[in-house]
Amino acid sequence: MIIFGVDPGTARMGFGVIDFDGQDSRLIEHGVLETGSTTSMPYRLRELYEELQELLTLHKPDVVSIEALFFARNVTTAISVGQARGVVLLTAAMHDLAVHEYSPSEVKHAVAGYGKADKNQMQEMVRMILGLPYAPQPDDAADAVAVAICHAHHASGYASLAGEVR
Amino acid sequence: MIIFGVDPGTARMGFGVIDFDGQDSRLIEHGVLETGSTTSMPYRLRELYEELQELLTLHKPDVVSIEALFFARNVTTAISVGQARGVVLLTAAMHDLAVHEYSPSEVKHAVAGYGKADKNQMQEMVRMILGLPYAPQPDDAADAVAVAICHAHHASGYASLAGEVR
Repeated sequence: MIIFGVDPGTARMGFGVIDFDGQDSRLIEHGVLETGSTTSMPYRLRELYEELQELLTLHKPDVVSIEALFFARNVTTAISVGQARGVVLLTAAMHDLAVHEYSPSEVKHAVAGYGKADKNQMQEMVRMILGLPYAPQPDDAADAVAVAICHAHHASGYASLAGEVR
Repeated sequence: MIIFGVDPGTARMGFGVIDFDGQDSRLIEHGVLETGSTTSMPYRLRELYEELQELLTLHKPDVVSIEALFFARNVTTAISVGQARGVVLLTAAMHDLAVHEYSPSEVKHAVAGYGKADKNQMQEMVRMILGLPYAPQPDDAADAVAVAICHAHHASGYASLAGEVR
């Protein structure tokens, strides 16, 4: 099962693609889609849409996994993340992919074993789970890989298959 | 100048298309795009995207006008509106259209002459400006028509051309 994890944002959108065979996960690709600060928001979203389309066409994932946002500094931030998230969900629907969302504590619990793991613990666990010499970088990509691993964990039956975006 | 006004939402998205000749505005079409409550969010956004594409292809507007959201009941509501807004901005960029946004008080000021006009006053002013026997209905469509009129007001030079979505 190919899982496409996303950490949505309009300036920086992290992504992480893993292949989960029911037991082990292997990292296929990870990175960050960056949009220029001088580009207007509509064209930033268009850039993200087109780059996500390319990534989904290339990797042909079975499912998209995304972190749910429950807190935001203010309405403006929530709207901005919502806009990026809207583009991710739309692109997934264009490829007829189901989207599962997980809270930050669900991601931490699935990856590190408890919901309050700190950043270093998360990075070390992601590194171990994927059998890598170093943890994936930068942070936005690492977060996207973690939410992909979280879906693998749920899909493997360690947890109920909750969280599909309705 | 054809102006496409939008009142974004994922369950109901109002739209209003007006033709502004530099002095008078004429209503071309208005309505609400509704998505089913049993449809998942990714497919709702896909529906909105496809219907917006059709409307922009049909009416060939010169510009998109959208209301800015500054307050929301909670983060979940802001994310939801942000998702719908993201689809609107993306579709506009796909058609190479500039998007202008206006605060609720700017819309009220442009349509009714002052920023605290109530709903009935707004409806009556929209009706008069467009020379209609009745005010446009339902509410979401009327709000979209009002934000289109607001852009006409700004474009006519009564106010500075502020508000382009950057």
